[in-house]
Amino acid sequence: MSCEHDHDMATASSVVPKVKLFGAPYSTCTSRVIMCLMEKQVDYDLQVVDIAKTQDHKKPEFLAMQPFGMIPVLQDKDIQVFESRAIVRYIARKHEGHGTPLYGTSEKDRAMVEQWLEVEAQNYNPAIAPAVWHLVHAPLFGQQGDPAIAATSLQKLEKVLDVYEGVLSKSKYLAGDFFSLADLSHIPFTHYLINDGGKAQLISAGDRKQGCSVCNMMSLKVVKTYDLQKFRVNVGDVVAQLDPEGRASDGRLIVDSISRVIPKRPCSGFQ
Amino acid sequence: MSCEHDHDMATASSVVPKVKLFGAPYSTCTSRVIMCLMEKQVDYDLQVVDIAKTQDHKKPEFLAMQPFGMIPVLQDKDIQVFESRAIVRYIARKHEGHGTPLYGTSEKDRAMVEQWLEVEAQNYNPAIAPAVWHLVHAPLFGQQGDPAIAATSLQKLEKVLDVYEGVLSKSKYLAGDFFSLADLSHIPFTHYLINDGGKAQLISAGDRKQGCSVCNMMSLKVVKTYDLQKFRVNVGDVVAQLDPEGRASDGRLIVDSISRVIPKRPCSGFQ
Repeated sequence: MSCEHDHDMATASSVVPKVKLFGAPYSTCTSRVIMCLMEKQVDYDLQVVDIAKTQDHKKPEFLAMQPFGMIPVLQDKDIQVFESRAIVRYIARKHEGHGTPLYGTSEKDRAMVEQWLEVEAQNYNPAIAPAVWHLVHAPLFGQQGDPAIAATSLQKLEKVLDVYEGVLSKSKYLAGDFFSLADLSHIPFTHYLINDGGKAQLISAGDRKQGCSVCNMMSLKVVKTYDLQKFRVNVGDVVAQLDPEGRASDGRLIVDSISRVIPKRPCSGFQ
Repeated sequence: MSCEHDHDMATASSVVPKVKLFGAPYSTCTSRVIMCLMEKQVDYDLQVVDIAKTQDHKKPEFLAMQPFGMIPVLQDKDIQVFESRAIVRYIARKHEGHGTPLYGTSEKDRAMVEQWLEVEAQNYNPAIAPAVWHLVHAPLFGQQGDPAIAATSLQKLEKVLDVYEGVLSKSKYLAGDFFSLADLSHIPFTHYLINDGGKAQLISAGDRKQGCSVCNMMSLKVVKTYDLQKFRVNVGDVVAQLDPEGRASDGRLIVDSISRVIPKRPCSGFQ
């Protein structure tokens, strides 16, 4: 299935075969890849995989592409890659001279991007993911979130943010004074926590000395580029589509607005 | 502090400044980096950080290098990187034309290496790490391991190995028919589980149809290159050095043999 983004780009790049992205727009890992494709101005077809109602990710044809039965998967001619952080590395490397320089401009920049991308995967993600599940996603999927697990998760997250605060007092973004793959990779979970989990104060100026720097990294660039407010509304659409068994729909209706880039707007929604 | 490996290489590369690796030889993450340095034939100084007795990784001078207080850290002239998987990527990229081609030889190879390196970080490591802690490391550090947590961990690991079995029925190693950064990254935890945790059957031909392939990946190459049997004995040295409070020593005595490359030998110890 094509998304609106594809139609916008069709004239400019109709001779270049589009990459195919198999995923779900409400999935944080799919969002990570979509954001990377947008930063690198790569035209794509989003092939929606229903991971809720029809459980397409556990069917043989999907397992042949991704043996763990997880989204997303990228197909670029004869190269097929899974694991979102492997996919964004592939995209950022292949399109190095195009769009945002997500690896920076020097070998040192690249080393720092890889370092903070790993910190996201090993420190930030394990801390934030349980909070987002128990505060945001579990209720969406008709399950009961556990506030105690969410609270423990947020305590761990605070410790990671303490370190970020120190780093961001010295540079604008995590890997230096440039927006990189590392910052981008933090966005999907952070977005859900601050917009849908009601925890905006965690990264706002109110709670943190370097709140403004954290805000720069997590929201200013993001709110400017991606319509996360719209994204939030679309999470509401997912809720509205819950079937009688409490399972989410395949998300087809919300594909269009997620992949639409909107004009810049100020970083006020997060303060 | 220098290690034996450094002395071996001193004549050939005395004009090239050595990289410094801050870590502990019994740490799985430090081992990952040491193995990569050896595969790429990069001369290094191991600066032992005592993470047990004197807790050097929590002291201000170390936190200035690694704000999370974790080992290892690599220092290569003006570039300083932490997070073991970021360090090995940096080494493999910088020394691309030297030693083992750990990213393979094509863009497709590289995409597959990144994919399986992420699978190691996101699927394999979370499954195996609790088992290794509760079966091997907790007792070494004077703590009581929990057999129930180890059992749950091993059940998760079995599911990951089920997928590996399918992959390794089609290619010799995870990313294709070449030993890569992805295979290398699996070694430290796997080594502890099969040699010190008594779980060799998990990846041996006895339990698994593709046991021989798994064995190829996990042990043949490894046993050929790194003296893991020696490494195992050295874990015993750590135990012997436990002080009255049950804390491990700084590991200085076991540095030399870990960084020594021994001649080839057959893959019989794992069957």
